[in-house]
Amino acid sequence: MAHAPETIDAYLADHAARFEGQLFELLRIPSVSAQPDHNADTRRAAQWVRDDLIALGVPAELIEFDSGHPIVYGERLDAPGQPTLLIYGHYDVQPPEPLEPWLSPPFEPTVRDGNVYARGATDDKGQMFTHLKAAEAWLKTVGRLPVNVKFLIEGEEEVGGKNLEAFLAAQTRKLACDYAVISDTSQFAPGLPAITYGLKGLAYFELRVQGANRDLHSGTFGGAVQNPLNALCQILASLKGADGRIQVEGFYDDVRPLEDWERAAFAQLPFSEADFAADLGVAELFGEVGYSTLERKWARPTCDVHGLWGGYAGPGPKTVLPCKAGAKFSFRLVPDQDNRTIAQAVRRHIERHTPPGVTWELEEMHGAPAVLVDTTTPGFAAATRAIETAFGTRPVFIREGGSIPVVGLIKQHLKVDTLLLGWGQNDDNLHGPNEKFSLADFHRGIRASAHLMAELAG
Amino acid sequence: MAHAPETIDAYLADHAARFEGQLFELLRIPSVSAQPDHNADTRRAAQWVRDDLIALGVPAELIEFDSGHPIVYGERLDAPGQPTLLIYGHYDVQPPEPLEPWLSPPFEPTVRDGNVYARGATDDKGQMFTHLKAAEAWLKTVGRLPVNVKFLIEGEEEVGGKNLEAFLAAQTRKLACDYAVISDTSQFAPGLPAITYGLKGLAYFELRVQGANRDLHSGTFGGAVQNPLNALCQILASLKGADGRIQVEGFYDDVRPLEDWERAAFAQLPFSEADFAADLGVAELFGEVGYSTLERKWARPTCDVHGLWGGYAGPGPKTVLPCKAGAKFSFRLVPDQDNRTIAQAVRRHIERHTPPGVTWELEEMHGAPAVLVDTTTPGFAAATRAIETAFGTRPVFIREGGSIPVVGLIKQHLKVDTLLLGWGQNDDNLHGPNEKFSLADFHRGIRASAHLMAELAG
Repeated sequence: MAHAPETIDAYLADHAARFEGQLFELLRIPSVSAQPDHNADTRRAAQWVRDDLIALGVPAELIEFDSGHPIVYGERLDAPGQPTLLIYGHYDVQPPEPLEPWLSPPFEPTVRDGNVYARGATDDKGQMFTHLKAAEAWLKTVGRLPVNVKFLIEGEEEVGGKNLEAFLAAQTRKLACDYAVISDTSQFAPGLPAITYGLKGLAYFELRVQGANRDLHSGTFGGAVQNPLNALCQILASLKGADGRIQVEGFYDDVRPLEDWERAAFAQLPFSEADFAADLGVAELFGEVGYSTLERKWARPTCDVHGLWGGYAGPGPKTVLPCKAGAKFSFRLVPDQDNRTIAQAVRRHIERHTPPGVTWELEEMHGAPAVLVDTTTPGFAAATRAIETAFGTRPVFIREGGSIPVVGLIKQHLKVDTLLLGWGQNDDNLHGPNEKFSLADFHRGIRASAHLMAELAG
Repeated sequence: MAHAPETIDAYLADHAARFEGQLFELLRIPSVSAQPDHNADTRRAAQWVRDDLIALGVPAELIEFDSGHPIVYGERLDAPGQPTLLIYGHYDVQPPEPLEPWLSPPFEPTVRDGNVYARGATDDKGQMFTHLKAAEAWLKTVGRLPVNVKFLIEGEEEVGGKNLEAFLAAQTRKLACDYAVISDTSQFAPGLPAITYGLKGLAYFELRVQGANRDLHSGTFGGAVQNPLNALCQILASLKGADGRIQVEGFYDDVRPLEDWERAAFAQLPFSEADFAADLGVAELFGEVGYSTLERKWARPTCDVHGLWGGYAGPGPKTVLPCKAGAKFSFRLVPDQDNRTIAQAVRRHIERHTPPGVTWELEEMHGAPAVLVDTTTPGFAAATRAIETAFGTRPVFIREGGSIPVVGLIKQHLKVDTLLLGWGQNDDNLHGPNEKFSLADFHRGIRASAHLMAELAG
């Protein structure tokens, strides 16, 4: 089977208005997982998703944990011998604050210029919901799904909850699948859908440097003892060279080079470095020599300081020689760098580059490997065709500089690749005020998901 | 005349208890110039000093300004043809907070182990008051002072008030003198009095670095744009080399080398680098190669970062690529470095060492030249003899890494050197809790001041 039957497309067209109404209903539930005041609302969103799954024909339940928010799990396995999809999404949303910049209330979905504005519109209620409606179209017309589908919709994505990983680790048989599908990313540009096939990993550190046992007067003691702020700057400056390359010994040993087809494909994307710089308000871009901006953003490892502190930051001069300084910094990693190997190399580098007279502590705060999805699988090809059908244009294949931890967890526990099929746009303001989602893309997403099921069926 | 007449010493002995009682009275006045709640107390301290001057025989008045605290000015010019001393001190004190660590209340002078504990005990009420009592001894016995004396006791030293400089600039004839005398420093060690003949200057800056026009996600944008925190660290790290030498081009051009006698004298002082390091709790000291710790502290220019800020400093990881970073840093200068020349060199250095993709602003927050007192004048010799008489041991000649701005102002406006005759100890906790002053040193200081007047008279 290649395309979905025409009855599916017809069903989608007939029920488009109702689908929007249902989405708005879900968006009205302020399921802010980070805010305990909204715990009841967050649970209400879980129940709403579970009830919709049951209503459309997928038996579903809430998986409860000792603490935190439940997972909605539902499955419909009526295609023996066919592939199994694990559709992941999340029903929780970021806090809407600050409220003042919102043009319409964050939990009162409002349509302007073909977009629905609401917290969670694109991240991830609107995108996640497309897969439910795709399943509905199959079940309400054909009466069954052409592949096996498992829905795993969690409520702790925005707070980095640990229940999902515990569930993945404990239920590898229940969750066994051929591909995971996640719609929680963006298209490359309006009218240019994309499949994201690479995500960076992360090695995040906090470095604390200690000098004397107390703050000192910089006149009386300056020049005689090491200043931990000067020392911290020296250590951090030593991490990256003037050519933008990271100076940690062995850092690039396991970096998988960009393939020729990738560099060619990135170069053909409609991307203007001048527009990019202008939007950011910088006179010039800066990155690793020998790579384009998209290559740097998507496929080359990076090193960024996230925070610096120490000494006096108030108004006016203060001549203190502080005894403590600290920084947070991280490396974004690419395949096949290992975040534990990198952490060891960073530790050795700091050992070598710390000037005399101070001590230091390095805390490894977060580590995750990079992800590269195999672009040659039948599933990847099926997703490409389904998106082309629904969006009217062939998707481009892109990578992303950020991390989506669940993709790594799925790879680790279920041993499968994830198809990252994003229906959003880069300017959807996820996590910010006036979050939005294009209703046209909402419907295209539903159609793409419905066709993906058809394309995947053998 | 060489020594003061014996009647002076007898008077000092007879009135020692009353002098202490008067000092305690002055110490009970919470003249915290920084705290508006204490404005009336600060004025009360000024009046108290003025009244004591008048009572002991020096006509005195309050010099009022549009705002801030008055100067107490008194003079007794009954030694025509003899040198004139300008005795400077201050009646205001640092805030006593935090109060919790004080063993006795900061404004309730309490004697323990021969020291009086109170805010202002050493800085500067106790030290300043010695010169009033010395004048009293002369006036109540001999009936006149052997030299001309002008008292200039201000009330804004601890807040860096501008009234003093305006007064110095406007009243150069009234304040004309041969030497200024200030007792607001310390002895080298208990039992080892010192004359401080060198002070460092200062060039203090705030540097602000700006990257993009907004904070960015370090995953999505990392590696593609310059990170102002990384850039700031690079700039600051470039200021000093691994050998502890400052890398700003031309920085050492005007540095006057230590003289052979100074290096020899410093080397003979009872100073243990090991004890110094142990007290500070550092495994090793660090400073400019080729110089001892005392040479680095007193006579070599330094570069210290005082504060760093930018990005996220809260708990846990945050993957932000911040758009702003900043730092405060300064150079302590030595003769004959000019703080304005240094500021220009620093500006050029930052221009050269700022990586691409960020802009920066440098604010010059404070600048002052270094001071080196001529150690070959008759006044310096007189002070040396007077201290030897009063303390029973010849003073050592030391320098100091800090700055005392009034010394530079006096040099600039009155064209005279200052004799820095410190009666304090290094552990007197000035500016901290449990500030103290040795009562034995209080009386020795009075005697040294009385003998200085004799030694100076031709």
